[in-house]
Amino acid sequence: MIIDCHGHYTTAPAQHEGWRKAQIDAKGDLSQLGRREGAVITDDEIRESLEKTQLRMQRERGTDLAIFSPRAGGMGHHIGDERMSQQWSRVCNDLIRRVCDLYPKNFAPVCQLPQSRGCRPENAIPELDRCVEEMGFIGCNLNPDPSGGHWTEPPLTDPWWFKLYERLEELGVPAMIHVSQSCNPNHHFTGAYYINADTSAFMQILESDLFERFPGLKMIIPHGGGAVPYHWGRYRGMALDRKRPAPAVMMGENLFFDTCVYHQPGINLLAEVIPVDNVLFASEMHGAVRCVDPDSGYFFDDTKRYIDRLDHLDEDGRRKIFEGNARRVFPRLNQLIAR
Amino acid sequence: MIIDCHGHYTTAPAQHEGWRKAQIDAKGDLSQLGRREGAVITDDEIRESLEKTQLRMQRERGTDLAIFSPRAGGMGHHIGDERMSQQWSRVCNDLIRRVCDLYPKNFAPVCQLPQSRGCRPENAIPELDRCVEEMGFIGCNLNPDPSGGHWTEPPLTDPWWFKLYERLEELGVPAMIHVSQSCNPNHHFTGAYYINADTSAFMQILESDLFERFPGLKMIIPHGGGAVPYHWGRYRGMALDRKRPAPAVMMGENLFFDTCVYHQPGINLLAEVIPVDNVLFASEMHGAVRCVDPDSGYFFDDTKRYIDRLDHLDEDGRRKIFEGNARRVFPRLNQLIAR
Repeated sequence: MIIDCHGHYTTAPAQHEGWRKAQIDAKGDLSQLGRREGAVITDDEIRESLEKTQLRMQRERGTDLAIFSPRAGGMGHHIGDERMSQQWSRVCNDLIRRVCDLYPKNFAPVCQLPQSRGCRPENAIPELDRCVEEMGFIGCNLNPDPSGGHWTEPPLTDPWWFKLYERLEELGVPAMIHVSQSCNPNHHFTGAYYINADTSAFMQILESDLFERFPGLKMIIPHGGGAVPYHWGRYRGMALDRKRPAPAVMMGENLFFDTCVYHQPGINLLAEVIPVDNVLFASEMHGAVRCVDPDSGYFFDDTKRYIDRLDHLDEDGRRKIFEGNARRVFPRLNQLIAR
Repeated sequence: MIIDCHGHYTTAPAQHEGWRKAQIDAKGDLSQLGRREGAVITDDEIRESLEKTQLRMQRERGTDLAIFSPRAGGMGHHIGDERMSQQWSRVCNDLIRRVCDLYPKNFAPVCQLPQSRGCRPENAIPELDRCVEEMGFIGCNLNPDPSGGHWTEPPLTDPWWFKLYERLEELGVPAMIHVSQSCNPNHHFTGAYYINADTSAFMQILESDLFERFPGLKMIIPHGGGAVPYHWGRYRGMALDRKRPAPAVMMGENLFFDTCVYHQPGINLLAEVIPVDNVLFASEMHGAVRCVDPDSGYFFDDTKRYIDRLDHLDEDGRRKIFEGNARRVFPRLNQLIAR
């Protein structure tokens, strides 16, 4: 089985973003909107939005299931206030639930959290609980920078976040560390801000005792771990200089990178330096890069090809990256698949 | 000849930083300081500060010359006002000149610029001119974020910066894009902020026509180009999606990465994806990582070893990385070496 641990609903019908726009215009006063519970979207519209892209590509590329969440760039935690984030998260998560009800073999649901600049992370627990306990979600996306590029919250290793981590541990769901749209023109969102957030999050954790404090907490740093594998020697050296555990030891059963790295040499490096138990297959399609690599003739984000071509990865390692690690990191996935 | 294009004076005698502290305490009122022109530092103190580290390591590692600038983390453009940055830059650059006078065969001078948050970049031209025209400096460090992590200036591709670029073109000196200390606890300076700035700068340039506008402008993105080589497929795809020239074409005779990547697999990747004409040897010693890799038995930042071990790099390519490219990017270096 081939599990893609990182997909966003980037192709949702246009009226979904239309509802968001109306909600922003109304500053969250839902009485001004036609429907409080989100746009009218038919099952056929959902099917059509997925058949041409994600589902077709799953078939063509030979992957089985995508762990699927609302569009990351659409979370927009920097827009409006906490109540608006609660409204919008609910609408987005409900839509993901419908996708997974229509295609239970193709998608497993991950939720966005109703974070908001300066608001306590534990305020997101009611929506997290609703998604996980009532609606069968298996993970969440956690935004380390709800300010959209200003980085005004404390680092992920600060007690500011701990109550949310306690709940994640209790529920047995992992968090993918994922920022949303950048509102700073210095940082292009998919070309810089996403990757920079990954790198900053890793360095925060490397300097901390976060996983000694929360041994059951599991986090995924997407986009191949940002810049970290490329600078693995830097992080190994910095850990040594600080008398901290080696990065690979620190990652252990707690920290994981995905394979959203869109060329063979990058995936080769990832597989060479990061322990095979800490790498989860992912493509993030249909996402940041949507074209075909003229050199290879295949889509840049067809990351399965790169893993298939890892020469010195044995069959056991391949199975871990494609399936086993995802089942370990998302324990609730096993219950879903068994059903 | 082996030219290390990226070294900072991280081992300057303590009274140099002492002067800075006094200047900050005096809010730039130099009449309160014993000396306006910087701390009293003897030639012997300078020699001692270099003999045990940079010079010893040059001998041990077999490198010849370091292109040498003030400590990047010490630039502190976010501290105080523009006048204080002018005072401090002058003191730092004068000290670099003394280093290079004492060891003209070992060091070639690069200056810091008196940037300050919100102040026009062309205000740095008088100090740039002083360094290049009067004191024989061959390049400068340009800080894309004088706010120290808040990223409040326009992107590097904005006309905000153009007058400074015009002067760099006229003088024939390159700029290394290098931030200073981070004042945001989310971004560790050498573990995240430096590398993130590299990635953001590259993406800014990728979306622009900067080098069509300034064909003579040369920029170096340090730390191996941040995350860019690891995500080379992402950038190739994003350029294609935007109908922009391929990243390698865009880099051309204008944009260069150094080799401050502290492990063999990272250097292998860099050499595999980035054109050999766009890679400059560098180690940034004595800098971010100061320990020995227990796996190899050698210093993490002994990057010459990694280049020496690049199997499929021919002798011509090796000479470009170690020497030829630096002579091309720093045209004033040839005059220095010829002397």
